[in-house]
Amino acid sequence: MALIVHKYGGTSMGSTERIKNVAKRVAKWYDAGHQVVVVPSAMSGETNRLIGLAKEIMAQPDPRELDMIASTGEQVSVGLLAMALLALGKPAVSYAGWQVGIKTDSSFTKARIQSIDDTRIRGDLDEGKIVIVTGFQGVDDEDNIATLGRGGSDTSAVAIAAALKADECLIYTDVDGVYTTDPRVVEDARRMSKITFEEMLEMASLGSKVLQIRSVEFAGNYRVPTRVLSSLTDPLMPLEEEANSGTLISFEEDTNMEQAVISGIAFTRDEAKITVLGVPDRPGVAYHILGPVAEANIEVDMIIQNQSVQGVTDFTFTVSRGEYQKAMGVLEGVKGEIGASSIVGDAKVSKISVVGVGMRSHVGVASKMFQTLADEGINILMISTSEIKISVLIDEKYMELAVRALHKAFELDKE
Amino acid sequence: MALIVHKYGGTSMGSTERIKNVAKRVAKWYDAGHQVVVVPSAMSGETNRLIGLAKEIMAQPDPRELDMIASTGEQVSVGLLAMALLALGKPAVSYAGWQVGIKTDSSFTKARIQSIDDTRIRGDLDEGKIVIVTGFQGVDDEDNIATLGRGGSDTSAVAIAAALKADECLIYTDVDGVYTTDPRVVEDARRMSKITFEEMLEMASLGSKVLQIRSVEFAGNYRVPTRVLSSLTDPLMPLEEEANSGTLISFEEDTNMEQAVISGIAFTRDEAKITVLGVPDRPGVAYHILGPVAEANIEVDMIIQNQSVQGVTDFTFTVSRGEYQKAMGVLEGVKGEIGASSIVGDAKVSKISVVGVGMRSHVGVASKMFQTLADEGINILMISTSEIKISVLIDEKYMELAVRALHKAFELDKE
Repeated sequence: MALIVHKYGGTSMGSTERIKNVAKRVAKWYDAGHQVVVVPSAMSGETNRLIGLAKEIMAQPDPRELDMIASTGEQVSVGLLAMALLALGKPAVSYAGWQVGIKTDSSFTKARIQSIDDTRIRGDLDEGKIVIVTGFQGVDDEDNIATLGRGGSDTSAVAIAAALKADECLIYTDVDGVYTTDPRVVEDARRMSKITFEEMLEMASLGSKVLQIRSVEFAGNYRVPTRVLSSLTDPLMPLEEEANSGTLISFEEDTNMEQAVISGIAFTRDEAKITVLGVPDRPGVAYHILGPVAEANIEVDMIIQNQSVQGVTDFTFTVSRGEYQKAMGVLEGVKGEIGASSIVGDAKVSKISVVGVGMRSHVGVASKMFQTLADEGINILMISTSEIKISVLIDEKYMELAVRALHKAFELDKE
Repeated sequence: MALIVHKYGGTSMGSTERIKNVAKRVAKWYDAGHQVVVVPSAMSGETNRLIGLAKEIMAQPDPRELDMIASTGEQVSVGLLAMALLALGKPAVSYAGWQVGIKTDSSFTKARIQSIDDTRIRGDLDEGKIVIVTGFQGVDDEDNIATLGRGGSDTSAVAIAAALKADECLIYTDVDGVYTTDPRVVEDARRMSKITFEEMLEMASLGSKVLQIRSVEFAGNYRVPTRVLSSLTDPLMPLEEEANSGTLISFEEDTNMEQAVISGIAFTRDEAKITVLGVPDRPGVAYHILGPVAEANIEVDMIIQNQSVQGVTDFTFTVSRGEYQKAMGVLEGVKGEIGASSIVGDAKVSKISVVGVGMRSHVGVASKMFQTLADEGINILMISTSEIKISVLIDEKYMELAVRALHKAFELDKE
């Protein structure tokens, strides 16, 4: 007997028929003797419908009130799924996050889980019940509902799995695993049966979109074995087969496996680049530029500071395209204060990264990447590197071309 | 400065445009210096949509899970209304029932409010905020969400008004007050500017449908001055005029007013009558018949036991038409046990009542009622009386005719 957490996305919960299929799948695991906790998302379209209503009333919805509204989609889902299981004769009970002690901070619409009290869930599991818990939400110290932001149900599932010390967290989604790159861009992209936590973190943060990045961080911090697998298969397929499908995010050093140098190509299409020109190069300049940006709750990704020439430097960073205008506005406001000569930007850029733990012990990955792009006539606008990834910023119109060329150059289409 | 509770029905909350109108109305009261608590219903159609989803999954939805789902409609409403007020620059905050200590019993889908902790609401009011609270719901001792059943938001509003010792509870609805009878049946039905609590109780319980009966009981028990008024008027109409519109449910002995003998004609169309024939007339017979019916959660209304003849009696009672088949089934199951010869029923009957506190000191109301019906050739199937009402059961096909004739006979069209 194992303790398993299942997470189902909005598409899997998209209609009452599909919810019945989810129930059949959950029942299969339960009947095999496992303890099962399920974290379903809102029915597809529902969160958008709710946010749409809010925006009809307030163009910039108040975050606390928006969370009050947006959190209801998951509450409906848990109730429906519990009923679908009860209709199959399985004991099931649903809970909203606040009912099972999921505590968050008060950053409405982008809250972080702080703690989970597992008492109630564990009690129900010990009584033989299937427990269904709302994803995406918890409550702060004053019992205000706070949501975790888009994709937050992944994080909820992994956090609950961590709190319960679950044997595995299964993230059922509409893709059947993590690919070497997006199959919509590269036809012969290949599914990986295993990926390390660190690689997954880079793949997720760089826009592979299979899992919310915070869920991967959670999985890493608490060493929760997490598997991404398809919810589109027959719910009654043999359990053994299902249990080994998809992609496992692994924490074990796998010495047997001949580690590929590069495991995947990740990309983010909607990036924007901002350059602050002619800044006096003195201590604290990065803080004075990025401080106000961070205060405006804008996430900054790549950061480059040029070599100083005659005490003056340029400072370049990227933000997601949706926050470009806001970031430009913030910087215009503090331009005088930081003593910059001007601020320029480009909102039509994309980021591409090659990711792989094997990179650590192999030289030449960077040069191969740059050469491949040069062969295609693609100009590199920015470069940033880490132990297991190299990212470049390029004009967005070359994005697909670059991904396909790199996927081929690193032979990711071959086992 | 007064403390006022507003309640808005689903029609008033039916679209984001209408919600903005509700906000304007609430803001008007707030700007006039009043403390305002608002209890909005779910947007019209929303509760039905949610129950429809549940029924697609489970024909007889599990009550606890149904409440989990159905309660979300109000949660969306409070968030939207709070935003609409914030958009007008008014400080507003929304709460679900559980966040402000609305405690109920565990009778899911038909729970009763047991207590309300006013600390949080009062704190916000004292800080100058408008407080929006979900109607229709609370939580039981184990923090399970429980709803109060259809129309429960009226009860929530009155209960919150009672807990806060509010000066008045204003129930905004799509009718402009309580009428002498249903204006759709009798064209010259007249709006009453005042009605006693007892009369309102009879009018509500007898199907006038303006207010949920439990809300009237609450208003009576806690002496909450409650006013039914229209939400369809211009939200910016003068506050003084609005404050005196509609119908006030009054608790004062009004000696100045020449009390009309009869204040209104109430009716319920969808009744059913069940007769248990040939029951041995011994102690406990009523209990043995009605016990199983009550256990099946079926509400019984009128009850008559015939004069016993040779130790055998007949026992007749009414239930709402929707529960007729269920009640017949229950009785067939215990027929042998109670020793009845047979059980017969009629599901095409309606109940009509004349209501008025003036009846107490006036004789002849009953005879006038019976004579009026006889003049129209309408046969009376059952009679039941109380201090302030006389009810008769008749064939449903005569219902409109009977209501019109009685309205005229008691001169309710005249001031």
